[in-house]
Amino acid sequence: MVLVSGGLDSMVAGGLAREAGYSVVALTIDYNQRHWVELEAAVRVAGMLEAERHIMMPIDLTRFGGSALTADIDVPKDGVQPGIPVTYVPARNTIFLSLALGLAEVSGARALYIGVNALDYSGYPDCRPQFVEQFQKLANVATKAGVEGDRFQVETPLLAMTKADIVREAARLGLDAGQTWSCYDPKGHQHCGRCDSCRLRAKGFAEAGLPDPTDYAEPPLG
Amino acid sequence: MVLVSGGLDSMVAGGLAREAGYSVVALTIDYNQRHWVELEAAVRVAGMLEAERHIMMPIDLTRFGGSALTADIDVPKDGVQPGIPVTYVPARNTIFLSLALGLAEVSGARALYIGVNALDYSGYPDCRPQFVEQFQKLANVATKAGVEGDRFQVETPLLAMTKADIVREAARLGLDAGQTWSCYDPKGHQHCGRCDSCRLRAKGFAEAGLPDPTDYAEPPLG
Repeated sequence: MVLVSGGLDSMVAGGLAREAGYSVVALTIDYNQRHWVELEAAVRVAGMLEAERHIMMPIDLTRFGGSALTADIDVPKDGVQPGIPVTYVPARNTIFLSLALGLAEVSGARALYIGVNALDYSGYPDCRPQFVEQFQKLANVATKAGVEGDRFQVETPLLAMTKADIVREAARLGLDAGQTWSCYDPKGHQHCGRCDSCRLRAKGFAEAGLPDPTDYAEPPLG
Repeated sequence: MVLVSGGLDSMVAGGLAREAGYSVVALTIDYNQRHWVELEAAVRVAGMLEAERHIMMPIDLTRFGGSALTADIDVPKDGVQPGIPVTYVPARNTIFLSLALGLAEVSGARALYIGVNALDYSGYPDCRPQFVEQFQKLANVATKAGVEGDRFQVETPLLAMTKADIVREAARLGLDAGQTWSCYDPKGHQHCGRCDSCRLRAKGFAEAGLPDPTDYAEPPLG
């Protein structure tokens, strides 16, 4: 079970699941209608992972508001700041992993791959190791499978990686990073080059010493 | 923040939230299009609780399959059996509480009321105290509010109640149980009288010694 966002991180997480010998069931949560380019990328990534099943699940988190990604708040362009950014979506990874858990239980999948990482994580509380550990504990008391001893494992192979490491892993696994999408503020099919996510992406390629295949509307700043 | 299903339990949970001095934000998850009568009941219950905001969130868990409530599996009519029943929806309460957590964080609510109970709970793993405790731990590492020390509390005032206790609580709180919906297999606007949920409901009124206002298609069996 791989949560596929269409970004670089979930592509690499899925590639590592395949390298570990798993076939892939992919779940993409469509929580933010503004960024349909992400969903196109998710379809490409699921194809690259040869997913046996790819479910696109729409859920309208814009009804909750409270984030630059789901409400009418400007995406910040002034670089990565300390603290939890306005692009934080309340309880996002909790909601995503819960849905992945439901689909995993039905599909017979017991390994849940999510491409969170704690180093270049932009300050989100639900990308930290503590969060992942608590979710795994929850999964095994919350489900029929868990209660019956068929335990779930939440796999976060990117947790300790830098963005440069992730870029290198993509290359090592033969996965085309150019097919993925990172930008929070798309300019058509171009990445903006200014949001936190574009900055981290560009920095990753630069630090990995690998060519950046991304089409940026403006040259990315560090 | 009250998860309002339209059933007796969530109505009483919401009534106890009000009695504790809270105003109510209500969330109803529309995960099962077959039972629109439940959604009508949820609207009535949110009205009775004078909710300041009532969000109906559609999420199509039928895409996952795997339960008599969300897939084309017959609802059992032979009485409550030991073990986890086929009406179990994989990760349902995990998904519901995750969504409630997201809405609570945005709304400023820190008390999450859910009407689970462990005695007459029909065998669902995600209605047990262990599940509730783990979810609360998760909530406080998963969210910006939790990390910043503004802690969430999951309130399950019905956890140790029998259905008879819940029926008595509804009467004590002046809430009309006749406005709620329990049946898994509706016959139009009538409760079937045969599914696990109808049996537990009827038994609750009988044991409480209170008149059962429910319109059953067939006389309920114990």
